Amino acid sequence: MTYCLGILVDDGLLMMADTRTNGGIDNVSSYRKLHCLDDSVDRQIWLASSGSLSASQSVVARLARRPEGGETSSSIRDAASMYEVADLVGAAVRKANKALVDALGPDKVKGGACFLLGGRIGAHPPQLFLVYAEGNFIECMHDVPYLQTGETKYGRPILDRVMHRATPLAAAVKIAFLSFDSAMRSNLSVARPLDMVVIPAPAQGSALSRRIEYDDPYFDDLTRRWSSTLVEAAELMPDPAFMTGTETPRPLSLVG
Amino acid sequence: MTYCLGILVDDGLLMMADTRTNGGIDNVSSYRKLHCLDDSVDRQIWLASSGSLSASQSVVARLARRPEGGETSSSIRDAASMYEVADLVGAAVRKANKALVDALGPDKVKGGACFLLGGRIGAHPPQLFLVYAEGNFIECMHDVPYLQTGETKYGRPILDRVMHRATPLAAAVKIAFLSFDSAMRSNLSVARPLDMVVIPAPAQGSALSRRIEYDDPYFDDLTRRWSSTLVEAAELMPDPAFMTGTETPRPLSLVG
Repeated sequence: MTYCLGILVDDGLLMMADTRTNGGIDNVSSYRKLHCLDDSVDRQIWLASSGSLSASQSVVARLARRPEGGETSSSIRDAASMYEVADLVGAAVRKANKALVDALGPDKVKGGACFLLGGRIGAHPPQLFLVYAEGNFIECMHDVPYLQTGETKYGRPILDRVMHRATPLAAAVKIAFLSFDSAMRSNLSVARPLDMVVIPAPAQGSALSRRIEYDDPYFDDLTRRWSSTLVEAAELMPDPAFMTGTETPRPLSLVG
Repeated sequence: MTYCLGILVDDGLLMMADTRTNGGIDNVSSYRKLHCLDDSVDRQIWLASSGSLSASQSVVARLARRPEGGETSSSIRDAASMYEVADLVGAAVRKANKALVDALGPDKVKGGACFLLGGRIGAHPPQLFLVYAEGNFIECMHDVPYLQTGETKYGRPILDRVMHRATPLAAAVKIAFLSFDSAMRSNLSVARPLDMVVIPAPAQGSALSRRIEYDDPYFDDLTRRWSSTLVEAAELMPDPAFMTGTETPRPLSLVG
């Protein structure tokens, strides 16, 4: 399994993916799932993959090579919009997953690979898409400022509670780390290193990418603080009166 | 979907289940999933079901009726231990799920019904079991003090962080509510009313059961407090220095 998360706020775009791959619990390895398709002055395009590793790698290879064919063929570098890029990714996903199904038979393929696509072309604000294993896709819009693929559920409650479109980009990175921390605690198939890329809304000519290693001091500190904070916060919540016989609730605010 | 949670701590046993049932998103209803199989002086036995409603009801009906047959047949009321009860439940689950598969064909049955079984017989401390759709079962042991069925993932991170075998029973009830709150926020298929039963470790002759309705003031207050606490706590976590340029972390403890 893998967990991929994309967050789109007013301040910009953030994508994060872990690197754990497994073919059964006794065959665990580490592969990069966050791929840079282009990082030039006028276009930064990144792809995060979950699901079949062979199908994922096939999609990235298809997208990375310049098409040899006739005038109608197009590539990531020629696409005029992120929507066009999503179309190209969708077509590559369809081909790769179909090749997998043809080779293994439909019963052996569970879901194929699916992707988060994010980036910007020119001065257009960053955009974020979820490309399904069938090649169709949806774009992240205003109401829910994130998209996920892979092992999505453990990391979602914190997003549902605190992420908003107006969340500053640095805070969004922090919340993404908390979301990954929850996923990694409850599921061994999600693990560091984590790869991340940040594309601020004002066009700056390049993305900020970073790998969070096993011993990253900030991540270690954050997960320790968050755990102790949650334990303290849970202790501060009032016990149910029908269990304790008391009726006086404690004050609402935790801090201050 | 449904979410069923059983927690076994030193102080006793707690079982909780929501009541939402759906046959597709346009066919949503409310059914009791937490069933009392026995609540007499020397035995309190409760069963929480997730999955196929018809199979669940069939299992409960099979277990509730006294067997008519010969000397070898046994019932919940005659079982000498909770392990024997789990065996009876497993046999009933196997029969009910097999009847479902025979009627619909294997392709139309996704997982059948599975169950949490909890309770005590005589002076023995309460026990908790997870009975799979195939009728086999596992018992909750010391290291991980909870078992779940149904829509388990959203509600699990809080359990993994704060539940211990030494957690007092009243606090365990509160944490169970927080777990359900997370599941209900992220998945429409889990919803109030919630049913719960508490069986304290010292034998008391009867269980404490309670229904948490749509307008339960304690639950409303708890979920409001918890949300605002999480938002405040996330704000208190330091942003990553590589995003802000600052290097001074804020103090570790949230309170005090």
